[in-house]
Amino acid sequence: MATPLVLHPDRLFPVDPGVRAIARRLYEAVAGLPIVSPHGHTDPAWFADDAPFADPTALLIAPDHYVFRMLYSQGVRLEDLGIGGGPVDSRAAWHIFARNYHLFRGTPSRLWLDWVFSEVFGLTVRLEAETADLYYDRIAERLAQPAYRPRALFDRFNIAALATTESPLDPLEHHAKIRASGWPGRVITTFRPDPVVDPDYEGFTANLARLSEMTGEDCLSYPGYLAALRQRRAAFIAAGATASDHGHPTAATAVLTAPEAEALFTEVTAATPPAPDRAELFRAHMLTVMADMSRDDRLVVQIHPGSFRNHNSALFARFGRDKGADIPTRTDFVGALRPLLDRHGNDPAQTIILFTLDETVYARELAPLAGHYPALRLGPAWWFHDSPDGMRRFRRQMTETAGFYNLVGFNDDTRAFLSIPARHDVARRIDCGFLAELVAEHQIDEGEAAELAVALTSTLVTSAYRL
Amino acid sequence: MATPLVLHPDRLFPVDPGVRAIARRLYEAVAGLPIVSPHGHTDPAWFADDAPFADPTALLIAPDHYVFRMLYSQGVRLEDLGIGGGPVDSRAAWHIFARNYHLFRGTPSRLWLDWVFSEVFGLTVRLEAETADLYYDRIAERLAQPAYRPRALFDRFNIAALATTESPLDPLEHHAKIRASGWPGRVITTFRPDPVVDPDYEGFTANLARLSEMTGEDCLSYPGYLAALRQRRAAFIAAGATASDHGHPTAATAVLTAPEAEALFTEVTAATPPAPDRAELFRAHMLTVMADMSRDDRLVVQIHPGSFRNHNSALFARFGRDKGADIPTRTDFVGALRPLLDRHGNDPAQTIILFTLDETVYARELAPLAGHYPALRLGPAWWFHDSPDGMRRFRRQMTETAGFYNLVGFNDDTRAFLSIPARHDVARRIDCGFLAELVAEHQIDEGEAAELAVALTSTLVTSAYRL
Amino acid sequence: MATPLVLHPDRLFPVDPGVRAIARRLYEAVAGLPIVSPHGHTDPAWFADDAPFADPTALLIAPDHYVFRMLYSQGVRLEDLGIGGGPVDSRAAWHIFARNYHLFRGTPSRLWLDWVFSEVFGLTVRLEAETADLYYDRIAERLAQPAYRPRALFDRFNIAALATTESPLDPLEHHAKIRASGWPGRVITTFRPDPVVDPDYEGFTANLARLSEMTGEDCLSYPGYLAALRQRRAAFIAAGATASDHGHPTAATAVLTAPEAEALFTEVTAATPPAPDRAELFRAHMLTVMADMSRDDRLVVQIHPGSFRNHNSALFARFGRDKGADIPTRTDFVGALRPLLDRHGNDPAQTIILFTLDETVYARELAPLAGHYPALRLGPAWWFHDSPDGMRRFRRQMTETAGFYNLVGFNDDTRAFLSIPARHDVARRIDCGFLAELVAEHQIDEGEAAELAVALTSTLVTSAYRL
Repeated sequence: MATPLVLHPDRLFPVDPGVRAIARRLYEAVAGLPIVSPHGHTDPAWFADDAPFADPTALLIAPDHYVFRMLYSQGVRLEDLGIGGGPVDSRAAWHIFARNYHLFRGTPSRLWLDWVFSEVFGLTVRLEAETADLYYDRIAERLAQPAYRPRALFDRFNIAALATTESPLDPLEHHAKIRASGWPGRVITTFRPDPVVDPDYEGFTANLARLSEMTGEDCLSYPGYLAALRQRRAAFIAAGATASDHGHPTAATAVLTAPEAEALFTEVTAATPPAPDRAELFRAHMLTVMADMSRDDRLVVQIHPGSFRNHNSALFARFGRDKGADIPTRTDFVGALRPLLDRHGNDPAQTIILFTLDETVYARELAPLAGHYPALRLGPAWWFHDSPDGMRRFRRQMTETAGFYNLVGFNDDTRAFLSIPARHDVARRIDCGFLAELVAEHQIDEGEAAELAVALTSTLVTSAYRL
Repeated sequence: MATPLVLHPDRLFPVDPGVRAIARRLYEAVAGLPIVSPHGHTDPAWFADDAPFADPTALLIAPDHYVFRMLYSQGVRLEDLGIGGGPVDSRAAWHIFARNYHLFRGTPSRLWLDWVFSEVFGLTVRLEAETADLYYDRIAERLAQPAYRPRALFDRFNIAALATTESPLDPLEHHAKIRASGWPGRVITTFRPDPVVDPDYEGFTANLARLSEMTGEDCLSYPGYLAALRQRRAAFIAAGATASDHGHPTAATAVLTAPEAEALFTEVTAATPPAPDRAELFRAHMLTVMADMSRDDRLVVQIHPGSFRNHNSALFARFGRDKGADIPTRTDFVGALRPLLDRHGNDPAQTIILFTLDETVYARELAPLAGHYPALRLGPAWWFHDSPDGMRRFRRQMTETAGFYNLVGFNDDTRAFLSIPARHDVARRIDCGFLAELVAEHQIDEGEAAELAVALTSTLVTSAYRL
Repeated sequence: MATPLVLHPDRLFPVDPGVRAIARRLYEAVAGLPIVSPHGHTDPAWFADDAPFADPTALLIAPDHYVFRMLYSQGVRLEDLGIGGGPVDSRAAWHIFARNYHLFRGTPSRLWLDWVFSEVFGLTVRLEAETADLYYDRIAERLAQPAYRPRALFDRFNIAALATTESPLDPLEHHAKIRASGWPGRVITTFRPDPVVDPDYEGFTANLARLSEMTGEDCLSYPGYLAALRQRRAAFIAAGATASDHGHPTAATAVLTAPEAEALFTEVTAATPPAPDRAELFRAHMLTVMADMSRDDRLVVQIHPGSFRNHNSALFARFGRDKGADIPTRTDFVGALRPLLDRHGNDPAQTIILFTLDETVYARELAPLAGHYPALRLGPAWWFHDSPDGMRRFRRQMTETAGFYNLVGFNDDTRAFLSIPARHDVARRIDCGFLAELVAEHQIDEGEAAELAVALTSTLVTSAYRL
């Protein structure tokens, strides 16, 4: 007999009845606010073409690295889930997922997926081996209906703005098609130049060649390279971008003289791969250059450092990037950001948003930095820490030093489009629970908490990201 | 007038009455399950000889570094507690302990000791200066009774399996005697090769000479050394071992070519002590070699890195190892384990269990690694973190990324035999409290929590350790 | 319409009604105990001269780096707050503060300031734009009254002892004047030699010249330098000092031979600035020298490491030290302190109190060190972590390994005299809440908790600081 699937209205609220009642009141006032999603990785082609999503496996398992990394950790082969491009039996893959669904107990994936199953597909029993076919059939049937196409879901999800993330090499044709279509959904791009500013990125020199082609600039000369970046930033801004994003291994920044920069550029673009410290210095320098350009074109700078990408060599060789084998590392901000902050930190007109995978820097480095430098703001709990307890640690370790007003609200940061409302809902519930505790401890009053709940949901997001 | 000593039935459960009721129900179903203790440091001679334990001081103070380190930190001399081999007045030592018992308020030692006093010895007043003699006499009297001999306590404690830890140089005669005795208690060994794989271990070269003698191999030749290790592993497996254990200063691993390995072996076994980085490389290499051997002989690999052993030079010179002066250090896993993981990480048939004394790696490194690599599992909160709040931090920082099924349940890891049930009881209470909170927050339902409570107590332990 | 300002009697207590009731009982017994403030930065001239405090801005904004760093982080110019010595419109500055007061929601500054507004100045509405003038006028009016002079407030605050902090170059004339005045308030000094032991301190060599003048010793010779330090320590002890304090960038300590020390001294006092590693070694050496001197003169040694001072170059150039731009850094204690501990750690007659801005060392390094070495004690949660959640993390991560009796109670560590009672009150409330949770979990009984509450408030402070 199948187990009922019920989303309890009080889920994730504090357990004390008095505090829970406060949290519920705060939540009721923000639960229905539109979703503002200023940073994420959905595919703009979905909204450009508005084609139906493919089958349940291709929609819900194959693109979700949270899901398949857990299955892989317990011995499931990625090939059997349809990852890596080979042929796959989608229904068989779904059965593997279903009979392993207990692995997600206690993880945020469980919260997000149950929401999708219940709220998007109307399922009323839990996913497990015996309900695998029921799920597969129901989801497949719904995906064929017009109400489950990307734009219809975008509207149903009440999304006010959704940012995707593209490389400078992306021609942005999907965003152009969206705008040309007359559909009013606000889908904007974000400028993510890693493939052309990180000498260790796969195909870095080929990428520069392609950038030259796209822009008509000679990207093997340093001035041409900078001009090409400026040109692409302008094209991104024309496609709605309000922010750039930088995913470096560390938070290192550097200020070089023009001759130093030019010499380093020549070195890292030469045929021989650069030494690790030279590649690192180039990335550090380019982060400062990007901030310099932001002073002119007003793109908000997002820094996402500290992921050891593609840690699993064999898996990377077989399946490529973004396959669940990126592992956080210890990250320094105090020394690393100083060159950038010396140059831009005191400028209240700049906005530099910091993220981290290293929670030890919350109270020790990030809150003190953002609680001082006018240019800094703090992004939300990121990736592995985008979870109920991860968010609670973020709030408890950031707020007392940085306050609320140096924060930028929530990012869903996801490829999993259907889970976006679930992720924002988790964030709103946890925030309301945290605020309710401050009220119950008489640190703030309930009116202030209500204001802060709206700020974290909406106003801090739109102001920080200039939306 | 003495203070009553009462073990409250709800101790360590969450304070909210609703959550506490859930925790109590979950706990009732696991409280009586047999103890599975797959990693610890009790003395197999106790179970081989089944002799009565000596006096209260020798049983409860002298071998418990948690106890004497705290007394030492407040100015008590170790000599006065019977440590260091000199003559001691056991009753006087017990009086010192009794009048300082308040020092343990808020520590797990207090929980473990009160359980032993109450449940094992039936004491009903608290230990303090005025009850010192009462305690000493009661315990001494009981220890003389047959029901307080090691095997009787093992049975009374409902221990299904108990692993001790021995060096390859140990002849395992106690384990042989236990098996020969016909007593059905399952006491097994664990292969801990530090004394013969760590060039910095006291007497390393003498240890190799002894290993040569024991095995008939020439342990000053690299092939002979490896053959000797294989031989001893086989002997340990014959004595019940299902796991090896490795206590290195760091988690460094390395893969060397055969000639590199041979040259390094020659270097670290030469008369002159090796340079620190060469000793470190040899340990790193041997960790990989041990995992290679596990592929053949199926020993589970346990890695316990990150303790700065014998930090207090004067104390070490006077009293030797394991005297409470081991201090945790910052430990990296992401870079350190990569050579090992490149070689074994993707093999679902391997089991490598990671421990840490550096809690900052829970959410940042260990949960992401174990939530991806099929060969990895996570050991429980270790040593200084084997405590109510330590366990709560472990659960809260590990679960959301690693889930429950990449964990291996609880280890008591103790020399203090009488406290084993108390330690497992603390773990069961904290786990049920944590699960109750997930239920109360509607993240999982109570049926799932009940399954997980059993898994953490029993099934994850026996499956991970192949018991 | 203004919002009421009410200090709720249950503020900061645990939210569960049962636990809150325990906390309230514990708190009632310590709420009225005298304040012992063994470490802080108030100005002794206040108590020497007993002059009225200046206007609200000069009293409550300009000296409080918690306040102006937050305002600065949101774009307020420091000049507009009266910082930097230029002319300022005090009332206009107060208006800036008032209309930005929402920035402090969720921060400890809000708790401290609301207490000052309510308890010291009797204000009954919250500070916001519309009440700015009401506040300004009320505070200004009160400051003119005799009851608001420093000594009157000291008495009203029920302060049993208050330690200030001075450089060896300070002539201590304010302390002399206090003692000569016949006023019985106990205001003592603390010996903080950073300006003459840190070669990187602004004006280091000029400071040595001044030290020579003050003492009649030749401070450019190493023996003269040591003699001068000994002389100044004696003068500080005569002015009531019971402790020294050391604010180094790291916790590094070193033991040098006499010739090494002399050569290093010559090097760091030469005209050319020393290399960073040589300056660091000198500081490390001098920390050990200070502890050596403490063995003779009994000053308690306080070590406050790990602040990256003056991180913001432009701000430092314009406004100088202590302007909110000090950022914590990752700090090692295990290796760093070993030379010092080898020399002094086993001496129960020494007292070395450790502080940290890096919370990751609480459970990993500091609690294990202090739970072993007789000379070590742990200072309270410091600076950015002197906050409700910061204190809770401290208690939860320290207690299980270090116990309570290796701690030294609370420090307010503040320049903001009026907030001292508020800070001690926050600490007492959080401590009572933490103890109440231990009681509610049946880890200790309520009688023990009551004893511990008094110990943390009074007896551990006076014994550790020899007051």
